[in-house]
Amino acid sequence: MVKAAVKIAVIGFGTVGTGVVKMVQENAEHIYQKTGVWLELSHVVDTDLKRERPVKVVGGQVHDDLQKVLADKEVKIAAELVGGMTAAAEMHKKLLAAGKDVVTANKALLAERGGEIFAAARQYDRCVAFEASCMGGVPVIGAIGTGLAANRIKAMYGIVNGTCNYILSGMSGAGKDYDRALKEAQAAGFAEADPTLDVNGTDSAHKLAILSRLAFGREVDFKDIAVQGIDDVQLADIRYGQELGYELKLLALADQTEKGLSLRVLPAFIRRQEALAQVSGPFNAVSIFADAAGHTFYYGRGAGMMPTASAVVADIIEVALGNAGRDFAARAGFGREAQPATMRSGEETTSQFYLRLSSVDRPGVLARILGVLGEKKISVSGCLQRASRSGEYVPVVITTYQVRQGDMQEAVEELARLEAVQSEPVCIPVAALPSDD
Amino acid sequence: MVKAAVKIAVIGFGTVGTGVVKMVQENAEHIYQKTGVWLELSHVVDTDLKRERPVKVVGGQVHDDLQKVLADKEVKIAAELVGGMTAAAEMHKKLLAAGKDVVTANKALLAERGGEIFAAARQYDRCVAFEASCMGGVPVIGAIGTGLAANRIKAMYGIVNGTCNYILSGMSGAGKDYDRALKEAQAAGFAEADPTLDVNGTDSAHKLAILSRLAFGREVDFKDIAVQGIDDVQLADIRYGQELGYELKLLALADQTEKGLSLRVLPAFIRRQEALAQVSGPFNAVSIFADAAGHTFYYGRGAGMMPTASAVVADIIEVALGNAGRDFAARAGFGREAQPATMRSGEETTSQFYLRLSSVDRPGVLARILGVLGEKKISVSGCLQRASRSGEYVPVVITTYQVRQGDMQEAVEELARLEAVQSEPVCIPVAALPSDD
Repeated sequence: MVKAAVKIAVIGFGTVGTGVVKMVQENAEHIYQKTGVWLELSHVVDTDLKRERPVKVVGGQVHDDLQKVLADKEVKIAAELVGGMTAAAEMHKKLLAAGKDVVTANKALLAERGGEIFAAARQYDRCVAFEASCMGGVPVIGAIGTGLAANRIKAMYGIVNGTCNYILSGMSGAGKDYDRALKEAQAAGFAEADPTLDVNGTDSAHKLAILSRLAFGREVDFKDIAVQGIDDVQLADIRYGQELGYELKLLALADQTEKGLSLRVLPAFIRRQEALAQVSGPFNAVSIFADAAGHTFYYGRGAGMMPTASAVVADIIEVALGNAGRDFAARAGFGREAQPATMRSGEETTSQFYLRLSSVDRPGVLARILGVLGEKKISVSGCLQRASRSGEYVPVVITTYQVRQGDMQEAVEELARLEAVQSEPVCIPVAALPSDD
Repeated sequence: MVKAAVKIAVIGFGTVGTGVVKMVQENAEHIYQKTGVWLELSHVVDTDLKRERPVKVVGGQVHDDLQKVLADKEVKIAAELVGGMTAAAEMHKKLLAAGKDVVTANKALLAERGGEIFAAARQYDRCVAFEASCMGGVPVIGAIGTGLAANRIKAMYGIVNGTCNYILSGMSGAGKDYDRALKEAQAAGFAEADPTLDVNGTDSAHKLAILSRLAFGREVDFKDIAVQGIDDVQLADIRYGQELGYELKLLALADQTEKGLSLRVLPAFIRRQEALAQVSGPFNAVSIFADAAGHTFYYGRGAGMMPTASAVVADIIEVALGNAGRDFAARAGFGREAQPATMRSGEETTSQFYLRLSSVDRPGVLARILGVLGEKKISVSGCLQRASRSGEYVPVVITTYQVRQGDMQEAVEELARLEAVQSEPVCIPVAALPSDD
């Protein structure tokens, strides 16, 4: 059999681009043996051609001229691994207009300007493949888009940002405070020098937008996601949570009910027994609840050179086989226009809550606090008050049964106004995952 | 847009067939919204038309005549959900010859006669889709065949039989002996009246054969899999294992080294911290280790009406989109002929081991036992001997470092011949999963 080469362009010779070059070169024979697709690197494009890379490009040309890719009629597939927003959007449109299918890991672009990019792909009858945009080496796009396609997805609970999970694991496991855990994550290479978009929850929200568009087949407006990061998580709450049997995780949460879809990124407690609670360090995982399949769970490395390259090259193979194009064309919100998702307001979601207050150590105060909750019809499932050791303030930790979020917010505001309550109360939802059974 | 109906036939109106009928009918609109595929049930075929089913077929005809399906030119996709071997093989060939693509959950058929079925599909230029054959609602066929396609798979450790896992969980969690745990599994509907093919490991081996063919792109001969079931697992060993920090699981294990592929189904201990060790009840899971993606883990319901239907209908959608056909055609060992896998003999595999002997409580016996292991160069990592309470025999539990299986076998045979050792020693491998890091 003659090897009909599939010629590809890699745009962005950074970490992921390097991984893709390495993988295509090292595994070409193996990929050919298993799938019949023979990949050949034609172009590797980057503005910085001087930096030393840990891999040598054999065969293809390394240059800084996107135009050469656009003009090369033999190249039908381009991997955009540059990242960023405005320039990347222009690049996607040019590549699509030039008749290339685009494979990308650019979650920010697809989450915030996906509508525009997908419309361009439709216009030029091309596709955008994006397995690498969420959870790196874990093929969750395939799982949701194909494996669970026949299901109605009811809820998704994801740990989709390795930086945050590494930091929270450092706080939870070794008792470091947030600043120290962040510094160690940076030293270990699991957090960027500027970690803002990771720790403030934006990156998780990007992934949630993409996963939700796919899972529900609806247009998802990134701005509809309520986002809270981990940057004000306190070690004390992680500790109290552990005493109560919980781990604190930054969750990307999609929850579909008859009233609509709720999309949130927030630090939440999870029962220690849940598979999600046990995801530690830089790993990612997602629990998906679907009407027929029930609970399925996916775990692995959500970032890094080779895990992300694994997803990029998988997509390149799928594009080469023609499958990515058909999937894209078939999927609502991608190759087909979709209705906007009906969103449910955050206030209408319900949850169990963990509440920590610092209160004056004085008779009647706890009763007053519980009274405020009672007035809002908030049922308390547990309460923990420690004797004051040195000061006049004591921590009070309260857990609730299922409560409307709007009611909880009102109660917290009222508690904050009590003269006996010091500083802002800390209120963290306890994620009650549907039962496995 | 006009809904171009994709007409399908469901053959076998048992548990899974009922689930497929239910799902196609209840989720048709939702599937259409998300994927643009409008499924229509044309035929539901079963030899037993009298039994009451919990679902009513609307639109399609229910009958017992496969010939009607073969003759219906409008039906391009048939789901074979009858199971079994000889009749099912004939049915597959007839359906393929009549120009139908076949979706199936029949693991036994694909594992034992896959070569023949896939050759028939090639001959008629059709495909066989089989997401439902392994791990029910967990889309592991897609994960391995597509998501990880660019990787070299190094090892797979799977819990792929829910019956065995339910029984072992009952023994481990509630301290039931094997017979009682089996009876309770039967009462709960998680074990068949005749559970032989589950508990003797055959069903796990079927799934391992399919997953390995896909993961390694090689012909896998079912007879090359070394199979041991759970039917002689003793509660005592589960208990000792727990003391040592292990859970006992029936593992389907594929392990590729330069010397070749080793495929085994066997009860093995796993460290309690591993995700696999925590899979309990009827759930399935698999840990896959790949060169680029690293460790990924997949978990969910491996059987049951709706989880299996979820996979069948996902495949039907993929066939309708044309993707299943392209995947099948591309994959070595399926739509393309493949070289047979180079197998590595079981003796050459290495493992840590747990060994339990019943020995005479007499000075020098333990030294004699350790001496036999020492002569075979087997390094002992731990040893546990309890004082005798009532009888003259005491249990001796020994754990080893990594040992060649052939050496261990020889040592066990020699130990069994010792006059001081009562009955057959119990020897159980301890699965040392590659590190996550």
